[in-house]
Amino acid sequence: MARFQSKKLKQEVVLRDPVHGYIHIEDKVILDVFKSKEFQRMRRIKQLGPVSYVFPGATHTRFEHNLGVYELTRRICDIFAKKYPSITPGDGLWNDDNRLLVECAGLLHDIGHGPYSHTFEHLFNTNHEKIGQKIITDPNTEISKALKQVAPNFPELVASVIAKTYPNPQVVKMISSQADADRMDYLQRDAYFTGVNYGRFDLSRILRVIRPYQNGICFTNNGMHAVEDYIVSRYQMYQQVYFHRVGRSMEVILQHLLERAKDIYKKGNLKVTSSLASFLEGNWTLDDYLNLDDGVMETNFLIWTEAQDPILSDLAKRYLYRKPFASVRIDEETKNLLPKLRNIIKQTGFNPDYYTATNSAFDEPYDAYKPSGKNANSQIEIMQDDGSLIELSQLSPLVRALNGTFQGDERFFFPKTMLSHDEDQPQIFDPLYEQFQKYVKNGALRYLRKPRKK
Amino acid sequence: MARFQSKKLKQEVVLRDPVHGYIHIEDKVILDVFKSKEFQRMRRIKQLGPVSYVFPGATHTRFEHNLGVYELTRRICDIFAKKYPSITPGDGLWNDDNRLLVECAGLLHDIGHGPYSHTFEHLFNTNHEKIGQKIITDPNTEISKALKQVAPNFPELVASVIAKTYPNPQVVKMISSQADADRMDYLQRDAYFTGVNYGRFDLSRILRVIRPYQNGICFTNNGMHAVEDYIVSRYQMYQQVYFHRVGRSMEVILQHLLERAKDIYKKGNLKVTSSLASFLEGNWTLDDYLNLDDGVMETNFLIWTEAQDPILSDLAKRYLYRKPFASVRIDEETKNLLPKLRNIIKQTGFNPDYYTATNSAFDEPYDAYKPSGKNANSQIEIMQDDGSLIELSQLSPLVRALNGTFQGDERFFFPKTMLSHDEDQPQIFDPLYEQFQKYVKNGALRYLRKPRKK
Amino acid sequence: MARFQSKKLKQEVVLRDPVHGYIHIEDKVILDVFKSKEFQRMRRIKQLGPVSYVFPGATHTRFEHNLGVYELTRRICDIFAKKYPSITPGDGLWNDDNRLLVECAGLLHDIGHGPYSHTFEHLFNTNHEKIGQKIITDPNTEISKALKQVAPNFPELVASVIAKTYPNPQVVKMISSQADADRMDYLQRDAYFTGVNYGRFDLSRILRVIRPYQNGICFTNNGMHAVEDYIVSRYQMYQQVYFHRVGRSMEVILQHLLERAKDIYKKGNLKVTSSLASFLEGNWTLDDYLNLDDGVMETNFLIWTEAQDPILSDLAKRYLYRKPFASVRIDEETKNLLPKLRNIIKQTGFNPDYYTATNSAFDEPYDAYKPSGKNANSQIEIMQDDGSLIELSQLSPLVRALNGTFQGDERFFFPKTMLSHDEDQPQIFDPLYEQFQKYVKNGALRYLRKPRKK
Amino acid sequence: MARFQSKKLKQEVVLRDPVHGYIHIEDKVILDVFKSKEFQRMRRIKQLGPVSYVFPGATHTRFEHNLGVYELTRRICDIFAKKYPSITPGDGLWNDDNRLLVECAGLLHDIGHGPYSHTFEHLFNTNHEKIGQKIITDPNTEISKALKQVAPNFPELVASVIAKTYPNPQVVKMISSQADADRMDYLQRDAYFTGVNYGRFDLSRILRVIRPYQNGICFTNNGMHAVEDYIVSRYQMYQQVYFHRVGRSMEVILQHLLERAKDIYKKGNLKVTSSLASFLEGNWTLDDYLNLDDGVMETNFLIWTEAQDPILSDLAKRYLYRKPFASVRIDEETKNLLPKLRNIIKQTGFNPDYYTATNSAFDEPYDAYKPSGKNANSQIEIMQDDGSLIELSQLSPLVRALNGTFQGDERFFFPKTMLSHDEDQPQIFDPLYEQFQKYVKNGALRYLRKPRKK
Repeated sequence: MARFQSKKLKQEVVLRDPVHGYIHIEDKVILDVFKSKEFQRMRRIKQLGPVSYVFPGATHTRFEHNLGVYELTRRICDIFAKKYPSITPGDGLWNDDNRLLVECAGLLHDIGHGPYSHTFEHLFNTNHEKIGQKIITDPNTEISKALKQVAPNFPELVASVIAKTYPNPQVVKMISSQADADRMDYLQRDAYFTGVNYGRFDLSRILRVIRPYQNGICFTNNGMHAVEDYIVSRYQMYQQVYFHRVGRSMEVILQHLLERAKDIYKKGNLKVTSSLASFLEGNWTLDDYLNLDDGVMETNFLIWTEAQDPILSDLAKRYLYRKPFASVRIDEETKNLLPKLRNIIKQTGFNPDYYTATNSAFDEPYDAYKPSGKNANSQIEIMQDDGSLIELSQLSPLVRALNGTFQGDERFFFPKTMLSHDEDQPQIFDPLYEQFQKYVKNGALRYLRKPRKK
Repeated sequence: MARFQSKKLKQEVVLRDPVHGYIHIEDKVILDVFKSKEFQRMRRIKQLGPVSYVFPGATHTRFEHNLGVYELTRRICDIFAKKYPSITPGDGLWNDDNRLLVECAGLLHDIGHGPYSHTFEHLFNTNHEKIGQKIITDPNTEISKALKQVAPNFPELVASVIAKTYPNPQVVKMISSQADADRMDYLQRDAYFTGVNYGRFDLSRILRVIRPYQNGICFTNNGMHAVEDYIVSRYQMYQQVYFHRVGRSMEVILQHLLERAKDIYKKGNLKVTSSLASFLEGNWTLDDYLNLDDGVMETNFLIWTEAQDPILSDLAKRYLYRKPFASVRIDEETKNLLPKLRNIIKQTGFNPDYYTATNSAFDEPYDAYKPSGKNANSQIEIMQDDGSLIELSQLSPLVRALNGTFQGDERFFFPKTMLSHDEDQPQIFDPLYEQFQKYVKNGALRYLRKPRKK
Repeated sequence: MARFQSKKLKQEVVLRDPVHGYIHIEDKVILDVFKSKEFQRMRRIKQLGPVSYVFPGATHTRFEHNLGVYELTRRICDIFAKKYPSITPGDGLWNDDNRLLVECAGLLHDIGHGPYSHTFEHLFNTNHEKIGQKIITDPNTEISKALKQVAPNFPELVASVIAKTYPNPQVVKMISSQADADRMDYLQRDAYFTGVNYGRFDLSRILRVIRPYQNGICFTNNGMHAVEDYIVSRYQMYQQVYFHRVGRSMEVILQHLLERAKDIYKKGNLKVTSSLASFLEGNWTLDDYLNLDDGVMETNFLIWTEAQDPILSDLAKRYLYRKPFASVRIDEETKNLLPKLRNIIKQTGFNPDYYTATNSAFDEPYDAYKPSGKNANSQIEIMQDDGSLIELSQLSPLVRALNGTFQGDERFFFPKTMLSHDEDQPQIFDPLYEQFQKYVKNGALRYLRKPRKK
Repeated sequence: MARFQSKKLKQEVVLRDPVHGYIHIEDKVILDVFKSKEFQRMRRIKQLGPVSYVFPGATHTRFEHNLGVYELTRRICDIFAKKYPSITPGDGLWNDDNRLLVECAGLLHDIGHGPYSHTFEHLFNTNHEKIGQKIITDPNTEISKALKQVAPNFPELVASVIAKTYPNPQVVKMISSQADADRMDYLQRDAYFTGVNYGRFDLSRILRVIRPYQNGICFTNNGMHAVEDYIVSRYQMYQQVYFHRVGRSMEVILQHLLERAKDIYKKGNLKVTSSLASFLEGNWTLDDYLNLDDGVMETNFLIWTEAQDPILSDLAKRYLYRKPFASVRIDEETKNLLPKLRNIIKQTGFNPDYYTATNSAFDEPYDAYKPSGKNANSQIEIMQDDGSLIELSQLSPLVRALNGTFQGDERFFFPKTMLSHDEDQPQIFDPLYEQFQKYVKNGALRYLRKPRKK
């Protein structure tokens, strides 16, 4: 394999980071990617989108996260190069010639994300993974030009690491596996900025026990509990932050808002900035995509607050001024009540297409630790004294418990006014509200009478 | 005095905050102000503007800061009500009837800020203090409507606390003095999000030793060192964060960018969103102001990156993609070299009006501890065992030192390419660069020959 | 019920505490107990005994822990008195007349502990619970005299709270239950001083959701995850700190050292300070007990390092100079190998009675969360919106997993020299070591040949 | 110069440390010194002696501090070896052949300390520096034997680094200078364990900017503020912790207690453990010294609480049970009042020789930053872009202020009962107390009438 090299900077560039202390940039290629307009654009895209409506401190962006992942890959390479340097090819140890490649992949693993990625993709048929590949390899981007100073095919190699097609599993799994630099950074970062205590697993200990082996990356057995702790942190962050009902409510509103905007645009009646227009028309280019960010989206929402369409205007205000829907837990059985409830809501004057929704946290990119199934190859393994490997859930009852756990819930969203009359919403007549409220108890739907078993 | 009251919430609303743990909202009026669109708008205005170009974590907004100041006033009221309740009028202790008033003032003390306040105000003749007063008292704002549920003149009273014209000095100084809830919050918050270690003074101890007295607020003598520590933190935050040369450089670029936009707009040739247009025309309304935020500004900058005018387009890119100017320290003597240097820069092809600037950190709102002069009335006082007061710098040599300190510096900004040829800037001929660089040594300008004394 | 009252201090006494920030003492009776010689004695007894040999920072004492538990009960009382004050007897809310009682019980719950409690009790037939009751109620102790200023039977009442015989379950469970002030303090404190990351659950959130109810103390449902997190922390602290194999090894050495000392004392040949002599003789008084502490014990150990008996001298040195035994995991099956291994060890020159041991972490006071069985009444309950209670493991799969978990392990301890020849121990002949080492693999014992199934 | 080498450990030994995360031991010689009985003895000597009576968390020992200093020297060597490796002799950069030498010196720099060093030395004519040299070089100590595995004269070389006579100033100043590993560790450690917020300067930044130069160690100019912050932390720790009036009061009691014990011992009437006896007799050996620790001292104090001599018994109780003297500030003028006050105290029944004292914080090892005077050679220097050096106080007004600062105070100590009647002390007649109290105002002595100017 060719050794990937870049000019070293005369003086290392250092950035303060509240999570890792400092980000260190030592190579010209890293600095040039950092300076590119495609990378700087990440400053304008929040890491957690509408979650900042629930945790006001969560204003951090994909920019810092990408830098954090880069920094962790850099540190892991330092550790591997010092403690586990490959002597002969195929010895299962670390070949530091891969360093620049994995560092670039870490830095760019999320470069394809746009504003509110999941919602946006769903509605506008974009795909952040494909776009990311394009940003890295398209000869016109500043990133691709920067990467080429290492080797002509270096952009493609970086893209292949992110796409998990690069042959060396140590390189791929440092970025994408059940315990990779990506997750290690975002769990810590999201915990820091939301201010929750969960997610603060012992990174310094994880870095002490991480090591390469033939088929990827594992952990030595004296660090089993640190890895266990990391899995628990992940579970807690999902429960407390990523699956938070109010965050999901704001996402539901965002989705309905963009749906309504699409409908009205088709009718030719929507004020919109040019950067967003091409998406509504369905003929966007990479440049259009690169000109999108949270600010552009919110600028459009601000314009829409004064739209003539009352639903569009109301949803825009609900999003910008944080007026979430209420919600209740539902299950397979109580789901059958929804048509009835939607009908009550409709009678109070709300269009149920835009003012109700079901949202299942399981629909979201599932991330809990899964040693079997389609992600089976990324299971976490603990190396014993004699070099043999044992899969984590064999050793930890805690992880074993989480493994089969039914995580998250399904919820039904609707206007808060259905539960209380505090809001300044028009109310047709009161009995509707009372009728609705009978179906809600302890935060879940329930049958008034137990449905007869067939 | 009338007691200010608001309906208590059935259940307290609580927000996670990484700095204070939780923000507690117990009164309906506070919740209603919080929910108003004018207050929610603060979510879209960064607390430190371009400082996030230097410290990537500094993406926190004026929204969290306002909530933090509110929370601190709430806690101080709790402490005062428990430890120092007024028994008879004029006893110099705390009358808790003022609680709601001072809490609202804390919550709204910065409500008039728009995007990049200082730069924006200078160029568009806006004034965040006057606008803040208007947002609070104008009968059309949601905030004013929310405040009126306490009393018809409550908006005016809240505004008077912020304007420091309210007669009770304890109420005014809790929000505005050398050691007020405002500064206590922003020093801690800015330190947390930038990730610097400075600014983390011992808030829990300060809150233990703060107390009311006849003419305002002071500290008991067992807390002298905590207050001293707070003053040192302030000094360090100014040196390290607020006066950072790269942050100031980005601010200089922002200023030149907006100046250029104004010029071009006059010539009728600038694409701009409608919300910004009214400011360029000089006929903006309060609604226009309330529709501005960081995202709207950056949406315009994105549009301008493709403007025909090369200077506008270049400055917009420099701002969005973080390409700061270089800078050197100057003083009264070396200032005389600037015409010569501007001339060299001009010969290399840069318009010095847009590509150079001087910026003095002393020009910025000076905030260091000043017990005498025009802010004399807000000096920090330490109460002795026998109830007498001694001004802090009489007790602390550290504070005494800072008191007379010449803080900050004056700098000359110019394109980085003048110092190195790394940037892809057009270069007329090399000797110009060499000539320029002779004047720079150890980060400051210098005379090539010592100027003759007259 | 009589309201328990004590003179309030003119000025609150405040102590810095790294875990809770400050300890606040407001009542004269608390201050007087604090000043008593029996309480000050706790300064000289480490909280975690030999654990400081594994985690050098763990030098904190029972003194700070007792203060910490007091402080937490004080804060819980503040919260209960503010949020859940009893209006009518039997309403299941908090009667603040109990405050002083529960605060004293918190302060004194561990007052009966001596140096190395568990080991010491086992060998000298002392009982820290009974001694604690005596220290509180014996009319000659300074503590009993201090408590009597509240009421003549106040010492007995405080003792009854600690003994769990006091009738009010809210008072008892604040000190003794699966989620009490005692555990909340020691998990946080032990984590802080050992420097491990585990154990740092979100105390501020727990305090937000704790509440009284008819039969004790429960948590509101918005805090379920914080309580879950606390249970996980407990699990982790046991795994990582309390069950650490080296800490247990040092405890094994301590036990053998004291056993040997007893044997030699009987033979009339042991130098010993007078305070320890009475225990070796078996005729100790309360005053003797109160004159014991870690320093006295170690002073004796220092004397014994120069004893003529080589085993006593060697064990004393091993303890003082940290020379732990090695150990391997054993199970029901491999236990049968121990006679054979002890015999090998004996052949190398070590007396297996003093140089080997088995120690089972399950023998230690088992503390993991158990909602059924003999501690069933202390299960953790979560209050739903409608006031009904659900036991925690019904709601949390994580806790459910830990509930049935086989926590800890059983180990066989022996001289390190059996595994390597680094130590300066006499070695009879090498093959013994090789033979021994064949039975050890991946930190556990194993059969050389699989034993035949009967 | 010979390169100092030691066998590398097969597997690095790692210790958890709450301040630095982990202590890493990679060399056999370091591990052997660590295991020596002279080093392990440091576990039994508190770092801050009686300061734990004021800050209960401050139970940390000289053991952890020595390990922390070692760890910092190790990290500084890592940084120097990576960033500033010497290429040719005399180039002013770092020769990593010195690593093991400076690491051992860091580990052993305080090895000569015994219990309550400063008080003890003063009374028993010991000298911790000389004893430290002896422990390192005496051929009978385990430390000396361990060190000799590097080279026969290695003990002497290590001792010479600590004695500052080793020729290489970089090696010496890493351990002993105004900004050395010793101070960096203890400021952070003492802050962590006391729980104060001061002292937490930005160590990670200091380590980024530290560098070797011809005459020692300096800091690069981008780190000027981190060094300034460190100096301020030092100032604050002295003010808040090391000069705390109650800590000094306990030290005064300790001193009087040991003085009284000496007196009584001479009269042949003191029960004492043999290890302390040799000091009272004045014929102690190194072994005697190595058998002293805090526990031995306190074991003696416990015995003395039951001594017949009422002063000895009372002082022992005051020390063990924390009954500090009260104190007031005095100055050159008010000192003249002391004979009068001592006389009043005597009349109330206290022997002023044992129940009063003056103590000046300036008497303690003065440590504030002093660029001129006898410590002039250890001034802190900041390296400019062009390699020139500027002394710190030339650059920082804060440090300049501290430089000439009058730090600390002089106090007069006396029984608390003189100020209040709360204590259970015998009181002859009340007017004496009133008379005494007239001289005290705001924590200082004062003249009742202004003394006439001569």
